[in-house]
Order: sequence, then structure tokens, then C-alpha cells
Amino acid sequence: MITALNTTAPVVALRVAEGHAAENPLSLGDLGEWELIRRLSAFAPPGQFNDDAAVLDADNGAGALVVNTDVMVEGVHFSDRTTNPEDVGWRAAAANLSDLAAMGCTTVVGLTVGLVAPASTSWAWVEGVYCGLAACLRHHGGVLLGGDCSGGSSRMLAITALGRLPAARQAAPRDAARSSGLIRRADGSPGDWLVSSGPHGLSRLGLALLQGELSTAPTAELGLRAIAAHRRPRPRFDVVRALISCRPADLAWRVGGCDSSDGLAAAAAAIASSSGCIACLDPDALPLEPAMAALPNARDWCLAGGEDFELVLALAPAWAAALCQLLPGCRPVGVLEPGRAEVPRWSNGDPITPELGGYQHFG
Amino acid sequence: MITALNTTAPVVALRVAEGHAAENPLSLGDLGEWELIRRLSAFAPPGQFNDDAAVLDADNGAGALVVNTDVMVEGVHFSDRTTNPEDVGWRAAAANLSDLAAMGCTTVVGLTVGLVAPASTSWAWVEGVYCGLAACLRHHGGVLLGGDCSGGSSRMLAITALGRLPAARQAAPRDAARSSGLIRRADGSPGDWLVSSGPHGLSRLGLALLQGELSTAPTAELGLRAIAAHRRPRPRFDVVRALISCRPADLAWRVGGCDSSDGLAAAAAAIASSSGCIACLDPDALPLEPAMAALPNARDWCLAGGEDFELVLALAPAWAAALCQLLPGCRPVGVLEPGRAEVPRWSNGDPITPELGGYQHFG
Repeated sequence: MITALNTTAPVVALRVAEGHAAENPLSLGDLGEWELIRRLSAFAPPGQFNDDAAVLDADNGAGALVVNTDVMVEGVHFSDRTTNPEDVGWRAAAANLSDLAAMGCTTVVGLTVGLVAPASTSWAWVEGVYCGLAACLRHHGGVLLGGDCSGGSSRMLAITALGRLPAARQAAPRDAARSSGLIRRADGSPGDWLVSSGPHGLSRLGLALLQGELSTAPTAELGLRAIAAHRRPRPRFDVVRALISCRPADLAWRVGGCDSSDGLAAAAAAIASSSGCIACLDPDALPLEPAMAALPNARDWCLAGGEDFELVLALAPAWAAALCQLLPGCRPVGVLEPGRAEVPRWSNGDPITPELGGYQHFG
Repeated sequence: MITALNTTAPVVALRVAEGHAAENPLSLGDLGEWELIRRLSAFAPPGQFNDDAAVLDADNGAGALVVNTDVMVEGVHFSDRTTNPEDVGWRAAAANLSDLAAMGCTTVVGLTVGLVAPASTSWAWVEGVYCGLAACLRHHGGVLLGGDCSGGSSRMLAITALGRLPAARQAAPRDAARSSGLIRRADGSPGDWLVSSGPHGLSRLGLALLQGELSTAPTAELGLRAIAAHRRPRPRFDVVRALISCRPADLAWRVGGCDSSDGLAAAAAAIASSSGCIACLDPDALPLEPAMAALPNARDWCLAGGEDFELVLALAPAWAAALCQLLPGCRPVGVLEPGRAEVPRWSNGDPITPELGGYQHFG
């Protein structure tokens, strides 16, 4: 789904060039992805583009439906060189389902698939893609609901995933607007811990190995895990279920969060920006695989490699601690502090400066 | 949405070439669109691809949600030569909403939009497309729910529309499987009248005028209406509402139908094939604009021009007559007869033989 940040592109430099002459009209490349999304959000109700996905009937409470659309384009999101068709299908489904998990869904209803491909595309490739999609659905629930197909000059998948929030939880009486069970970017508060559901940077390492950017991983086992993380990401519905089961009895439902498809730092920035806080990350608590630490790019990849599809959550400390105790792999990575800053900071106040935006479309 | 017919491509010749050598693998062009869809339907629950869109919680009865995905590709579904950006947006939305109407929806929830475009695409074009989408939603209800955007080598829109069936109607007690308010291809019966909600072929005439295939229309007024039909099709929610309001008290809910995005004959064939009947069209009752009759292609365009986005319905005669009386423009065009035939027939038994398949992707 469009992952708009609340303000104009807090972490990505823009090249907005409104003054172009008429014979050189403003292009999407001039705008950049975030400014494009900001402009498109004007066509939707206020706040509609603020989260990873859209909630239908949130007021309904019980099992509200969540819908999310993602596109995957050959040469941008996948290529035959690094991804076999089964993995293209799995990743396309998993990326969408990850957005459902990031909203707090515990049930997958299903997906629709828009397939565009040249007539010369082999049936074997398409079959492989749908095998991968179906495998991801078998693993996480839901069915193929339908879709459409068309010829076109390049291969493209547009997936819409539908999921449901859990039915029987009560919203905090003191804030009825925070629907029960929903995870929203804007629901972080100062004092919350930022929790990462798993390591970051593995998928980027896997891509580096698949593209030949790196010839070997520090260990063979890490290399295999990194390639698996890139090819077969897991939507973290298990984290949502753990989050529900470990909520301290005295805490009402309030969970800030999103997934880390654009990287850990971008996720922290999005939550902080939407919640009106500053994200402070602890440099000694980066969720980095120990075996990756020797790599020169390890910290940048951890912060901004992207496509990790973990959840980054803002939780009251007691709930955060309970989650980290319940689910191995979940760990605190920082806190939300009062104030406003477009860029996350280190605990000592220094801004976090690597390339933070993940992949920039139209960049 | 994928508009699979119940059997293997009843009206479109296939070029299935399973025996290709390994160095020349079976391609989508070898399969053709309908065989591709038939194969993809194997990844979904049985019957899931049988209709214009998918129903969620049909058993729930009240206001079940319907979801539909369509892709529109530059050079296939639109081009700058014939369609300005506002019309691209309107048509993309309307084509999707038409599938919701064809399922019996009376309420539009909204759309998600996956946009793929090269970085060189002008913002003005994208803005125009979204203005057109928003105009269609303002007219028919629903909001822009979200979406995604990506760079890519050509322009493409993948739209997912969500709608709701009306809430408070009762299914026929004698057939609980026929959910209240749903329109399905398979719900026609021998003896039903086939009703067209409006004229057919206008959109194809509009395209011919826009492409310069025809230099003038028989009358200027018809030319303008034809171009409007091509550029600004109307999803026929008004027909669904009329259908509900004129149901004879002694008839339970049972409505076969689909929209005519692939043409009148293909719609009749799809209903007949899914319902286990033969579609017989009356050659003297073709839903043709009188002013079009002088055109040499008029009958073929009426039968198979495509993109008319009218509803073609199979109704018990009393209900069909009530509908045609209530809503000017609705007219009986034929009947469903007992038996099975892959191709619709004329009343005298002759098969209807023009190019029936509408646009064939991968053909």
C-alpha cells in the first residue's frame, strides 16, 4: 500500500521543480515518490493514506476488514536473475500480507491478482508465480479471490490483499477513536519503546549475494538465511498474536506501528512523524545479526536495506517488555521522545544520516 | 475481474499447443486469454472465478462485501490518442464499478489504485487520471481507499473496487445457496428472458470515430453519444435498484447476469454456459441504436463491440417485463432455452458467428 508519511517526505530529499516551463512539464521523476503520494492523498479522505493499509468499517469493531494493494514490477521489484517465479509469487503475496499484519490483522481473507505480461511470457513462469502465491496463502491463510490479466510490454503483478482484525477486543474507553486491535502509525506516544520484531538488513544482504555485489557471506549459514529472507519474507502475524496475548491487564489497546518494508529507520521515522514524537534509536541495540557485524555495510543495511518485512512497534514499556520476553527475536531498539523531528536520532541526539528512504520510485 | 467462462472457452478459438519443444516453451500467446484464466482458476477454490467479482461472507447475508480487480494497460486499454487522462481515470473506475453492479451491489465502498508509470510521465497526466477516478466515485459513491505506485516501462492502472450487496432481502427459502441480492452468471434458468439494460455497440462506434476508422457518425448527436459511451461509461447501479424495486411479490430472488464488457453475445454466452442453457437472441430485438442501423458493422458491433458496460440479465418473464416497463432502455433481447451450446443462437437456431470474444489478450 502507499506508505505516505504524515508530512512532506521527512527523510527523503525531494527534487520538486514546480517552475518548469510548459514545454518541460513537471514529471513524476521531478516529484519523487513521496511527493507524488502526498499529492495523490489529496484525492482521498483526510488521513486515509496514513497507514500501511485501509480499514473498512473500523467503527464496526468486530473483525473489521483491512485492504491493501501493492504493485510489483519486473526490473524494479524482481528480476529473473535474482528471483525464480515461485519466489516472485511468494514475495508479492508476503509483501501484501505484511501490510495486513502491520495493521493488526490476524486473519487473511484472500488476494486478488492483476497480472500484466507480454504474450511471449512462458506459461511456466506464470504457473510458478501462482504456485508461490498459493504457497504463501496456504501458510498464512486466505484464498485466491480473483483478478484480471492483460497483455503488456513488461511483467507486472498488482496484488490486493484483504484481511480481518481480531473480533473480540475492546477499545480503550478513554479513546474511542483508537479502534480495538488496530495498529496505526499515529498511535505512538512519548515514552513508548520502539520494538523490532526481528533482525534487519538480512534481506539486503541476500540481495547483495544474489546480485553478485558480495561474493560470499561471513558464514554459509548466514548467506542461506539472508537469501531466504530476501526470497521468502514472512508476514509477522505471529507477532500480532503475541502482542494480543501479552497485553498487560491494566493497559488499554494502543499500538503504534508499521512494517519495515522501507527499512528500520524509515519505519521509526514514519511512526514518530505520525505520532508527533522523535524516534531515538540505541546504537548499541541495532537489530543486527551478530554474524553480519563484520560487513562494512552492516549498519546501513540494518537501518535502510529495506524489504525486511518485520514489524516496528511503539508500545508502553511494560507491554514492550512482555512482548520481547514472550517472542524471541523481538527486541527494543529505541524510544519515542517528546518533540518533533523529521529524522530519527541516536540516543546521544545525533541525527541518523545513512540513505534512509529505501528504494525511491521515480527517483 | 477475470471473467472466466465455465468451460474451456466456449466462444473463442484456442491455440493450445502443449506439445511445444522445451526450447520453445508454451507461452501466454499460445494459450490465449481464456485458457490462461481457466488454468489460473485452478489456484482458487472451485467456482471462485465464475463471476464478474468475488463475494466475501455471502452467507452473512446482510450487505456482503464484493471485491473486483481490473488492470488497464496503455496501448491495450487506453492511449493518449483516443483518451484524455480524466477519461482514463473515469473508465478505469467505471469498468470496475460495472463489475460490482453486475454482482448486484448497490453501494460502492471505494477503490484502491496501483499506478505504474515511467519517471518521465507528467504529473498533469496522473493528476488528470485521479481527477477522473474521483469524479466517477463522486457520482457513484465510495472513496479512494489507498494504493501503491511504482516506476515501470509503461503506464498501467490496477484498480480494486469494493462494494456491498443490499442488506435486507431474503434468499429464496427453497434455495438457500442463492444468496439474497446476488447476481450470478450461473443463476439463469430455461425460460428466462434475456434482458439488456441498454443499447450495445455505441462504445465501439465511439472508438471507431476516435481512431479515425470512421470519419463521421450517421448523425452528429449519435457521434457525440458514442464518444461519450466510450469515454465515460456508466456502471448500471440504477438497473440493480430498479431490479430490486420491481420484483414480483411471488418470485424469490434469482437473477442470472453479468456485465457486457466483452460484448452482448459474450455476456449471453457466459450466462447460458454457466447456467447450463442455450442463449437464443432475437435478431429483430437487437439492442441497437436506430441511428446506427445504417452502418455496415452495426450488428457486429452490437453483438461483439465490447466495453458497453451494460447489464445482461436472465430473469423470469414476469420480472423481466416489470423491469423493462420500469426502466426505459431495458429491453428483452432473447431467452434461455433448455440444452447446452457453447455459442449463442438466433431464434431460428442458427449459431451467432461474428467475432464474439471482444478483445483477446495474448491473442
